[in-house]
Amino acid sequence: MPATPSLLIRRIRPLGASPVDLLVQEGRIAALGPALDAPPGCAVEEGGGALLLPGLVEGHTHLDKTMWGLDWYRNEVGPRLIDRIENERAFRKVSGHDAAIQSLRLARAFLAEGTSRLRTHVDVDTEAGLRHLEGVLRTREAMRPVQQIQIVAFPQSGLLGRPGTAELLGQALEAGADVLGGLDPCAIDGDPVRSLDVLFGIAQRHGRPLDIHLHEPGAMGAFSLGLILDRTAALGFQGRVAISHGFCLGDLPEAEREALLARMAALRVVLITSAPAARSVPPLLECRRAGVTVLGGNDGIRDTWTPYGSPDMLERAMLIGLRYNLRRDDELAIALDCITAAGADGLGFEDYGLAPGRRADLVLVQARTVAEAVVARPVRQLVVAAGRIVARDGALLPGPWAA
Amino acid sequence: MPATPSLLIRRIRPLGASPVDLLVQEGRIAALGPALDAPPGCAVEEGGGALLLPGLVEGHTHLDKTMWGLDWYRNEVGPRLIDRIENERAFRKVSGHDAAIQSLRLARAFLAEGTSRLRTHVDVDTEAGLRHLEGVLRTREAMRPVQQIQIVAFPQSGLLGRPGTAELLGQALEAGADVLGGLDPCAIDGDPVRSLDVLFGIAQRHGRPLDIHLHEPGAMGAFSLGLILDRTAALGFQGRVAISHGFCLGDLPEAEREALLARMAALRVVLITSAPAARSVPPLLECRRAGVTVLGGNDGIRDTWTPYGSPDMLERAMLIGLRYNLRRDDELAIALDCITAAGADGLGFEDYGLAPGRRADLVLVQARTVAEAVVARPVRQLVVAAGRIVARDGALLPGPWAA
Repeated sequence: MPATPSLLIRRIRPLGASPVDLLVQEGRIAALGPALDAPPGCAVEEGGGALLLPGLVEGHTHLDKTMWGLDWYRNEVGPRLIDRIENERAFRKVSGHDAAIQSLRLARAFLAEGTSRLRTHVDVDTEAGLRHLEGVLRTREAMRPVQQIQIVAFPQSGLLGRPGTAELLGQALEAGADVLGGLDPCAIDGDPVRSLDVLFGIAQRHGRPLDIHLHEPGAMGAFSLGLILDRTAALGFQGRVAISHGFCLGDLPEAEREALLARMAALRVVLITSAPAARSVPPLLECRRAGVTVLGGNDGIRDTWTPYGSPDMLERAMLIGLRYNLRRDDELAIALDCITAAGADGLGFEDYGLAPGRRADLVLVQARTVAEAVVARPVRQLVVAAGRIVARDGALLPGPWAA
Repeated sequence: MPATPSLLIRRIRPLGASPVDLLVQEGRIAALGPALDAPPGCAVEEGGGALLLPGLVEGHTHLDKTMWGLDWYRNEVGPRLIDRIENERAFRKVSGHDAAIQSLRLARAFLAEGTSRLRTHVDVDTEAGLRHLEGVLRTREAMRPVQQIQIVAFPQSGLLGRPGTAELLGQALEAGADVLGGLDPCAIDGDPVRSLDVLFGIAQRHGRPLDIHLHEPGAMGAFSLGLILDRTAALGFQGRVAISHGFCLGDLPEAEREALLARMAALRVVLITSAPAARSVPPLLECRRAGVTVLGGNDGIRDTWTPYGSPDMLERAMLIGLRYNLRRDDELAIALDCITAAGADGLGFEDYGLAPGRRADLVLVQARTVAEAVVARPVRQLVVAAGRIVARDGALLPGPWAA
């Protein structure tokens, strides 16, 4: 791709502040201030007083699973987690589901809605091997100039139950996955100590961070979380472990929850939530007060698990707001934080934010305030990713990212 | 308004079934079937295989409160119900809030999204008197040819605490409100027996049905609900009482809940829910199994209470689906039912549905299935209300309803 041209965006309001101009050079924010001069040859874009948000951050999705853009999938799946896991594995065997095509479709849809950084979990199991990973690696490569994708090698069918999975996860990390995923060490693996020992062992050998999906409720989840924190401390994984879901934190007595949150904060373990309306969820404001970073993600979008979801992170912020009853403007800024700054911070995306020197990932919407952007989810007037204008009025522009 | 012209809509799929044509005459569905002939002078509309839904039904909103289309309201309100009530009353005193203009704005926005029947609660209190009601009565009159609006005279500030409220509610019913509203007889009125006796007394004298907002949780809510059911039985209000919210039904032990639901079913008391993500909610599927009609509503939209909400009932159906974890296609049909047939049935809107002879309230969307219509909330391709095309591609067409 050729070098990114300079771009001056006039009259935009960073997070709802007074209007400024913003200059992009070499893919980065070069200046931010009133009435900037356009350097020679610089493209000029009129912002029209739009609200400026930093590029949106998706913290937990499954690009490889989605059926975005395909025939409608008639969902007749049973209600248990294991029903969904087995149904999907069976479906993928016969459907010819193509993770390369599907992940690219959804990554592009995310980009059109302003998401320039995302973490996706990719199923690694003994039936599919690294097939899904290979597809998503192609998507990561195709999108790399404008969208940063972190790939988690994720044992969706469990780590211990199917011999060979641990080796496959290691191979996935060698092949290019960034992060090692884990899943319910009691409820799915049935042997929490051995499951977590194997998991942390792989992460240690490959020097990778962890993202563990913990659906286990109440006391069982708290028990597993305690085992995870023990290993985080003992093995030096401070700042390198994320807990996705963590439903148990919404079930526990206050004293037990506070003790776990204090340990998580001390070990810099982050929480990633889709804020599901039908489940217990970690208490967002209390987690933040305890010093635990909480960030947001969709989880699966339009797949065999769920018909819901949308590649619009502002909609996820709205659902976070609804789940946590965030009504005041200052509270809605927290919902936005979950899909912007806290997201980038918690996932380790560098070079992020609306400050000079940072990568120019920008989203313009017609909204008066951050709160309005969250509740109204306006069409993305302009999306800039790594300094390039990639989408306008909700649609991707022609370019390598849309090829 | 002149007589409605005949209209033939070709190739539409009622609730996802095989394509048919649909003939509208004199505001009603005249025929529904394959390859209908267009009568002379009949307008013909190509449906293009769109999914056909019946007109959407909003079961619980507050048209008089909304700030839709106004300056952004910065929400700094405290967290309790009473904080919201008092903040709003104070705000309305100084803001010049105009319930006529605002309710008309929002009613039109509902119509553009396909809602042709709705129930709205209108605040009646000793400070504003019947001022808000007068505004909403004007809106009801303006929209009558295409949108049926039920008005609930609602004591938002409580019935007992401010002497004169009971009389105002009676006057509101005389002035044109259809239904009498009630509110938390313990938590707000502080004297549940007297509160409910006064409330049912007004309803009896005026021969009106009731819609009681019951936010009270757990045992307190169950106690109030029991008192309501006692009076429903004793005073002959069978089939004439709605409980809005009913959060307590999500808190109770199973046996107690089942007993209440059995009484509600026997007395034909309906439940109206906004399916809030942050509260306990009545268990939807269990209520339906018990024979209790459950229907959906937004509650307030973009007002001093909440920045959330949208006049799109498909979005409310999605939120109902998310709250109740409805993922299968057959379950999503239930979410749709809450904002269509169950809504019309529970609120007593007659002449409803996709059958010959019924009022032609129709919504066309590009969706393959009902489930997709709920999760994707597509732009309304066409909205027909009482036989007239009132909106196309999400925008109201010119006409008396948009004047």
